[in-house]
Amino acid sequence: VIEELDRDECLRLLATEPVGRVAVGWLGQAPLVLPVNYVLAGGAVVFRTGPGDMLRGLGQGPVSFEVDTYDPATRTGWSVLLHGVARPVAHADVAKLDLEPWAPGDKPIWVRIVPSSITGRRLTRDRG
Amino acid sequence: VIEELDRDECLRLLATEPVGRVAVGWLGQAPLVLPVNYVLAGGAVVFRTGPGDMLRGLGQGPVSFEVDTYDPATRTGWSVLLHGVARPVAHADVAKLDLEPWAPGDKPIWVRIVPSSITGRRLTRDRG
Repeated sequence: VIEELDRDECLRLLATEPVGRVAVGWLGQAPLVLPVNYVLAGGAVVFRTGPGDMLRGLGQGPVSFEVDTYDPATRTGWSVLLHGVARPVAHADVAKLDLEPWAPGDKPIWVRIVPSSITGRRLTRDRG
Repeated sequence: VIEELDRDECLRLLATEPVGRVAVGWLGQAPLVLPVNYVLAGGAVVFRTGPGDMLRGLGQGPVSFEVDTYDPATRTGWSVLLHGVARPVAHADVAKLDLEPWAPGDKPIWVRIVPSSITGRRLTRDRG
């Protein structure tokens, strides 16, 4: 059974995971999709990045952020997809956030995605 | 430590997971990113879908397919990103493939993405 999730439930689920995927579009090219560590702060997704394709893509237009989990044993899971514009995190706010990416490398740029839309679905098994 | 993965290693890893994420771009809009069940067949990713936004997006241009796994306890993992054009799977080939999506709903359209590029990274911990 597929159940649509409301915004509050999506945000609650987002807060339970350490890794999501940022997707940025490129005119005439396939989207760039990369996993990142993130935190939720004030209803926005915050992650860190460095110079590169992802950073360039973030400025091209609205971006997506996807999180999901699944259990192969029960063939169940959920996914949340958030759309929004990526903006720099204010310096004063960075100091309040606890976000240390697992990947090495300098990631000095803190980005937030303020959601313009959040949708999600949960897949469960019929008990009938 | 981040290690770049070669194409063979990426394909080997792709064969170990049941769920990946298809990302399709839209001019001036955020990409659509949805998890799907998939199989590898002849070096291509094969998944099933039905009528809807994903199907419309698949025809817009090159698409992406992303798979990752991670272990929060060790803060390690890997990710693979494949780009390519989505094409229908030939009817004769469908019969040979074992692909039953976990999600309910009619998914009569079998799609394959023949990779034009495959990149991947593995994140491990320094033992030093």
